[in-house]
Amino acid sequence: MARIAPLSGFPEWLPEQRIVEQRVLERIAHTFELHGFASVHTRAVEPLERLLSKGETSKEVYVLDRLQATEGEAAADQKDRLGLHFDLTVPFARYVLENAGKLTFPFKRYQIQPVWRGERPQEGRFREFWQADIDVVGDGELPFHLEVDVALVAGRALAALAEFGLPEVRILVNNRRLAEGFYRTIGLGDVAETLRIVDKLAKIGADGVAAALRERLGASEAAIQACLALAELRGGVEVLEQVRALAQRARADEPATGDEDAAQALLEQGLGELGSLLRECERRAPGLVQADLSVARGLDYYTGSVYETVLVGHEGLGSICSGGRYDALASDGGRTFPGVGISIGVSRVLSRLFAQDLVSVSRSVPTAVLVAVTDEAGRAHSTAVADALRARGIPADVTPNAAKFGKQIRYADRRGIPFVWFPGDSTTEAGDLIGQVKDIRSGEQVDADATTWEPPAADRWPSVSAASAG
Amino acid sequence: MARIAPLSGFPEWLPEQRIVEQRVLERIAHTFELHGFASVHTRAVEPLERLLSKGETSKEVYVLDRLQATEGEAAADQKDRLGLHFDLTVPFARYVLENAGKLTFPFKRYQIQPVWRGERPQEGRFREFWQADIDVVGDGELPFHLEVDVALVAGRALAALAEFGLPEVRILVNNRRLAEGFYRTIGLGDVAETLRIVDKLAKIGADGVAAALRERLGASEAAIQACLALAELRGGVEVLEQVRALAQRARADEPATGDEDAAQALLEQGLGELGSLLRECERRAPGLVQADLSVARGLDYYTGSVYETVLVGHEGLGSICSGGRYDALASDGGRTFPGVGISIGVSRVLSRLFAQDLVSVSRSVPTAVLVAVTDEAGRAHSTAVADALRARGIPADVTPNAAKFGKQIRYADRRGIPFVWFPGDSTTEAGDLIGQVKDIRSGEQVDADATTWEPPAADRWPSVSAASAG
Repeated sequence: MARIAPLSGFPEWLPEQRIVEQRVLERIAHTFELHGFASVHTRAVEPLERLLSKGETSKEVYVLDRLQATEGEAAADQKDRLGLHFDLTVPFARYVLENAGKLTFPFKRYQIQPVWRGERPQEGRFREFWQADIDVVGDGELPFHLEVDVALVAGRALAALAEFGLPEVRILVNNRRLAEGFYRTIGLGDVAETLRIVDKLAKIGADGVAAALRERLGASEAAIQACLALAELRGGVEVLEQVRALAQRARADEPATGDEDAAQALLEQGLGELGSLLRECERRAPGLVQADLSVARGLDYYTGSVYETVLVGHEGLGSICSGGRYDALASDGGRTFPGVGISIGVSRVLSRLFAQDLVSVSRSVPTAVLVAVTDEAGRAHSTAVADALRARGIPADVTPNAAKFGKQIRYADRRGIPFVWFPGDSTTEAGDLIGQVKDIRSGEQVDADATTWEPPAADRWPSVSAASAG
Repeated sequence: MARIAPLSGFPEWLPEQRIVEQRVLERIAHTFELHGFASVHTRAVEPLERLLSKGETSKEVYVLDRLQATEGEAAADQKDRLGLHFDLTVPFARYVLENAGKLTFPFKRYQIQPVWRGERPQEGRFREFWQADIDVVGDGELPFHLEVDVALVAGRALAALAEFGLPEVRILVNNRRLAEGFYRTIGLGDVAETLRIVDKLAKIGADGVAAALRERLGASEAAIQACLALAELRGGVEVLEQVRALAQRARADEPATGDEDAAQALLEQGLGELGSLLRECERRAPGLVQADLSVARGLDYYTGSVYETVLVGHEGLGSICSGGRYDALASDGGRTFPGVGISIGVSRVLSRLFAQDLVSVSRSVPTAVLVAVTDEAGRAHSTAVADALRARGIPADVTPNAAKFGKQIRYADRRGIPFVWFPGDSTTEAGDLIGQVKDIRSGEQVDADATTWEPPAADRWPSVSAASAG
């Protein structure tokens, strides 16, 4: 069989890394559940037409074909062709429509699954990666305060990962109404295109954005400068006045369009919402959230708050948690379901924890106690000891070979198993669960009874912690 | 957008069913970890050539293509074409080879993931479904007693699901060496083909098997009768003598082949292993395991013990947990990795629990306490109560709208949330976390402090239990 190389863009972890991944996923799910979000798991596939109906990532879809489909089936399949989902929002929107009659709204769900995108892999960008999403979806209406909640819940989920070495996070927020009001105020009526251009600021720079606004939208120099100045604003509630001043100055330079009043109203609504979001987050989680008027988000279905999140000191990694408000998450003609959601890029976070050795794990197996085997005839005795420990919730294993005790201790040591149990005299009647247990880190060895002995709580399961002084 | 219909063969669960699925998966994983199995998660895709190199399910592979691949890329991709894995054994074997230098052997891993097969869906058979696998893989060698362990661990994992309504399970075991020795003893040298034919017994009946053995292998009538008689043997260690007697009678009817001694040795080795497996399982888990000489397993890479599992009273559902020993799970030319593993069909189990209402769940959301909102001005007060509860690990939510209390209680009732919290006077200073909490099932309402109040332990999280008298 050919030599095996990893597949670029499809990360897999070694067992000790997988323990970290499990803890991270559990912790995120726990935070979501504490806040009342119910778990949903959707199938990996969606009809291709549904995947293609939204946003710009659709070009990166993996499509599926059955290898042995007959010609007739292939033709039928072509019509109903399936692809792998590229995010968890499209499947969730479909799930809501499909089950609308059986769900209770507002419906709060979380969803933690892999997604697939056929992009060129690079650091922090994969072809298969885990997302952890929360969304709240309403039937017809959805109160604004939920736009505060999802940002805070995601912030708390990420903050809880500090225990595992994750650096401080900062959620950068903006408001789509504010942006639309602002752009229309300064005469840029094609808001979607303006957003797409401004969203490329980090990639193509101020000159690139200016050129694109000029060439593709015929923007005036004053409007261009206003856009660039807006994108530089960052901070607390004080930015609201700065936005207002900027809009006023720029509007004075533009010819009248007749749209001024509507645009102004939208701008003020956006400023009001952004202010509420900033104030409420500051009250409930000081320092977590900051306004960043450059946040545009590529997808154009957002209609209110938008979020991106950086790891402080690791800004080059890009956003690790993004989302926003959309007035029509799903719609079936008769009913419209507005939503607000946010998505944690779990694989991006994990890959940074591993690449920079920010996290440490105590062992590579669940096992806390390895029960030694004196000789093969005594294996049943050792197995009974292990079963007695397991029955009390202590992960235990039995050495696979009755080698010398030194070799059995090495077996534990190589896996980081902290305790080795030496069974007592196996010639006594079966069920004799008295022996000795050795902490192979300290060398301490004591008499112990498998029906009562307890390891220290910290040793029962592998422990995952921030690496000391990375 | 078109009306949405479920996709046949891709089951999805409603939120309360998903809670059951989560508990089932957690319980299985917990049992595996108590027995020292380390978690591994592999990517969903494998190179097509690897998927096609093993066994008979390979015809049902879903292949992937990037929708927008350029022509050059498409040609390159063709060579390295990817497909979705159809089990967890093929990816694990590849993972072992890829990471052999970084793993410690024998390596015990568990893996719980969806797999995909493009089969025609039917009851209990899906196109996307979850498997929960354990395997132990050795470097060059693997002691027989691990063939006992994996059966017992899987049996314990399934037995632990009785709490959630799963009927009693019975693991049916056979031995590939025994079968090979038996068939060769009675002159059927093409063992793989014989196994494939006998494996179809339930599907095509005794007459069908007899005809196939006669036509495809030229089997004598005595040999055919011996095969059919073997397949009827079922029970405890007493079947070993019955097999031996059957082989002796049948051999007397066959012409000499010169293979008798080798075949006889193989038969005896298989009988010895099957006997050990039966005796050891009976000692450690009485009633769980039974010999069933009709168990053949379609895949022909098994070399020792083979397992299938039925739900007692639901035998028609087919096997819910299967596996066996293979002397070459993986091989890279230089090294060979023998393994033994077993796979629980989680989706098949869940679909039966749901279809027959065997399981019951107390609510559809994680939330234990819904904090009511007196008016929108008091929302911050209610949110502070919820945050105080969450900080002590109590899942809490805040009503999205400050409606009449009756409507807020209905909001809780529709979701099965047991407690509604009425905040105290919100005009007192912020941080006043005293209020009243009502158990909406009994109507009892008491004064409570959000920094100290505890729900009954059974109400903290949704509870999943066997449905009473299904």
